[in-house]
Amino acid sequence: MERIEKYGYIEILLKYKGTELVLDHCAKFTCGEEMVNISAFWKDSDSYAVRFMPEKEGHWTYRIEIGEGVLQGEFECVTNVGNNHGKVIAVDTHFSYADSNKYIPVGTTCYAWIHQTEELQVTTLETLKNAPFNKIRMCVFPKNMPYNNNNPDCYPFLKDKNGKWDVNRPDPKFWHKLDKRILALMNLGIEADLILFHPYDYGKWGFSDLSQEESLIYLKYCIARLSAFRNIWWSLANEYDVIFAKDTHDWDVYGELLLEKDIYHHLVSIHQMITMYPRRRWMTHCSIQSSEINRILLWKRDYGMPVIIDECGYEGNLDMRWGSLTAFEMVHRFWQSVCRGGFCTHGECFHQEDEILWWAKGGWLHGESMPRIAFLKEFLYGLQGEYKAVENGGDPNQSEEEKKENPFFQRLAKAPKDAVDTFTINTCPQKIVGDGYYLEYFGGIRPCMANLNLDEDRDYKVEVIDIWEMTRTILVNGVSGKVRLALPGKEGIAIFVSENK
Amino acid sequence: MERIEKYGYIEILLKYKGTELVLDHCAKFTCGEEMVNISAFWKDSDSYAVRFMPEKEGHWTYRIEIGEGVLQGEFECVTNVGNNHGKVIAVDTHFSYADSNKYIPVGTTCYAWIHQTEELQVTTLETLKNAPFNKIRMCVFPKNMPYNNNNPDCYPFLKDKNGKWDVNRPDPKFWHKLDKRILALMNLGIEADLILFHPYDYGKWGFSDLSQEESLIYLKYCIARLSAFRNIWWSLANEYDVIFAKDTHDWDVYGELLLEKDIYHHLVSIHQMITMYPRRRWMTHCSIQSSEINRILLWKRDYGMPVIIDECGYEGNLDMRWGSLTAFEMVHRFWQSVCRGGFCTHGECFHQEDEILWWAKGGWLHGESMPRIAFLKEFLYGLQGEYKAVENGGDPNQSEEEKKENPFFQRLAKAPKDAVDTFTINTCPQKIVGDGYYLEYFGGIRPCMANLNLDEDRDYKVEVIDIWEMTRTILVNGVSGKVRLALPGKEGIAIFVSENK
Repeated sequence: MERIEKYGYIEILLKYKGTELVLDHCAKFTCGEEMVNISAFWKDSDSYAVRFMPEKEGHWTYRIEIGEGVLQGEFECVTNVGNNHGKVIAVDTHFSYADSNKYIPVGTTCYAWIHQTEELQVTTLETLKNAPFNKIRMCVFPKNMPYNNNNPDCYPFLKDKNGKWDVNRPDPKFWHKLDKRILALMNLGIEADLILFHPYDYGKWGFSDLSQEESLIYLKYCIARLSAFRNIWWSLANEYDVIFAKDTHDWDVYGELLLEKDIYHHLVSIHQMITMYPRRRWMTHCSIQSSEINRILLWKRDYGMPVIIDECGYEGNLDMRWGSLTAFEMVHRFWQSVCRGGFCTHGECFHQEDEILWWAKGGWLHGESMPRIAFLKEFLYGLQGEYKAVENGGDPNQSEEEKKENPFFQRLAKAPKDAVDTFTINTCPQKIVGDGYYLEYFGGIRPCMANLNLDEDRDYKVEVIDIWEMTRTILVNGVSGKVRLALPGKEGIAIFVSENK
Repeated sequence: MERIEKYGYIEILLKYKGTELVLDHCAKFTCGEEMVNISAFWKDSDSYAVRFMPEKEGHWTYRIEIGEGVLQGEFECVTNVGNNHGKVIAVDTHFSYADSNKYIPVGTTCYAWIHQTEELQVTTLETLKNAPFNKIRMCVFPKNMPYNNNNPDCYPFLKDKNGKWDVNRPDPKFWHKLDKRILALMNLGIEADLILFHPYDYGKWGFSDLSQEESLIYLKYCIARLSAFRNIWWSLANEYDVIFAKDTHDWDVYGELLLEKDIYHHLVSIHQMITMYPRRRWMTHCSIQSSEINRILLWKRDYGMPVIIDECGYEGNLDMRWGSLTAFEMVHRFWQSVCRGGFCTHGECFHQEDEILWWAKGGWLHGESMPRIAFLKEFLYGLQGEYKAVENGGDPNQSEEEKKENPFFQRLAKAPKDAVDTFTINTCPQKIVGDGYYLEYFGGIRPCMANLNLDEDRDYKVEVIDIWEMTRTILVNGVSGKVRLALPGKEGIAIFVSENK
């Protein structure tokens, strides 16, 4: 009997000539008490396919009714191994793999990498193999903007006789490529944060002008075809608010459709240019464009879900504001995001005469941030258990009752919300606290000393971390109570205080 | 006959034993049609004084009625010379000297410098003499906070028999010192941005707990005594909103009192910790504590007056967020402020074992920002005429009508105000435009090239400015139309484009 890893997938190919793109609920997968309905999707001229990701170990049987025919089968779902930990889920304001293993997003961005030559795509995968990134932001549709406007070899749809995209005729070549690339990422342990719509078409191909009906046909096809891949995340849009053909109602319909049709409930987000999308039940996390990293505190508070700064600018040297960060600033934003209780995403935009820039096309990395992001990732994965970010600059030992009697907090309580928010994010330490440890990042400031106030009854080790030099050095060990320490007095320094147990 | 420079001052000492601190309108100064009423102030045990700053050249006479006596006199007001350009006034969102000479504030901060030893005060003045600063933030009252909590040799008031400050008994020693220090600054061409109240007392002396009645007596005395000094600016408070003994009504009363009693209408501002003080008719400019320099655009729009970021953090290495900026960051914030159409203020906080830190006590400068701020100042003073900051990221050639038809602007018009504000300040170029020139500062980004779109019919020179290296280099001369230029690809670069006329 066929053996499928838990969180792996099985694909059953069905010879059938049909007219519908998706055959709803034509397949039933059963394992003991558990029964799951799955849709088939059109795969090629004379075939459909059913894909299923089992999330339960055991003996599964399936029965597929298609046209007049019935296909039955079975397989054994066995324990997941290696880097297979299942889909990523949102838990409170963090993430986790489905099998409870730790997942901390350390993303990168290659918007149109699958629209490049085969050779370049292979290079991109090779680069990713040697990089720390475990999530990649990538588009289904090609892009049309500076450095990134080439025609790909194939498109998601074929055209009708009038030269108009026919969303009811997916191009098998394109979708086969997309499958293959998502699976290649899966093998590398990388989540495919798949951007379903984006505005950067400007009439070149017309994908940003699909009607709502066309968009829904396309989206249903994506769900039926791709959701059995454990590493799929749905990013409804890059910059939803400048896709002029769509409005909030349209996006809500997509979100609800995902809730209904994606039986695995993969992560769903929507990325903005100007206005954050309001909180919705179909959103699993915030995917934010902003350089105001400090605001993570507010977004976490307002949305109650994990916050990823998916676009804070990219390391590079373009004459465009968003593509011209120094490597230090890129790394700094990662540390800042983490120490605010959020996550950050990398991208790289160094001008090249051949216009192959990582952020758009993949290829090679030219910058200096990547190994430093790897250093941060290693540090974070080394932390025990979950941590929480400090949420204000006040004395954590002060009770709500004491605060009420404190004239400062009385003033704060009367101040306008936006002034308090700004004050809070600018004064709150960039600090995460776990069980028996904390990490404080000094960010853009460079104190020459730290005055710590540790528990008198415990015993601590203090390490200093240089985010640029990638060093982690014990400053002092076996201390408690009030401790005054000399720091390097430079930017990009954190201290890590951990209890010796 | 005595000759007084225009914008200089005359002091007439009056032997008189009185009980009131200020004798309202006891003096009349007349020059042709012009007549000014001036109050006398108590100066010492048996003397009062009248001080007057003539702002009109010509023959002045005065008549002072005090007690039973009358004193009359005359003087000639002659043309101002040297660095005497009169008081500073606010004009639109810039400043100017009263005689129309250019004044661009380049401030520093020495909160309690007059509360230090005579020797240290002299050192401070020596440092200022060799520095670019033309404005200094300084307090009347001593301060009580880390690095800055020494008892001065004298206080603004003497105590009553119960050991309580008696605001009706100014200490002549203190006020003589204050006069002397303001005059020393005047000689150096430095505006004394005098902070009348601040919260950093914490019961050590009790000056932040003066009653409203006491505060008004003190304030009236300050006005009567100090307003004839052309270089006085009134800063109602450092961090008004955490002076718990006072509320908005109290501050408004002070502001209105200044409007009424300061016949010269010196500049008036009020500095916040959390909440910006609402716009008031007595405010001449915004004095802001914030590290969000980009927001200058919004404050200028909302207040319609000049904006000085009087506290954006200080160059230093303290273990306090506000006193730990690198020199680069301090200089960067100056350039950023200027290119947003505002102004910035310096301060310095390097840890010293003797606790003499510039920001609090004056003394010596230890940092690296000062010469670079001087470089900026020299550059700005070299610009012809007034300039305006670019206020949004849109195409300046696009009409309002065209914008209405542009789907992007339609979306922007519907977005929430705070989202639009954030988007605007983060995408708007840091750029000021004057007659025949513009300066664009790239700030924290580092493009390797610039694509300019210059007038086809004119002839331009393009210079590149390195704010750290203090270099100004001609990149290309005699160009027009579309120009593509290589830039250094590092942080802290500006370009200055000027028309060859």
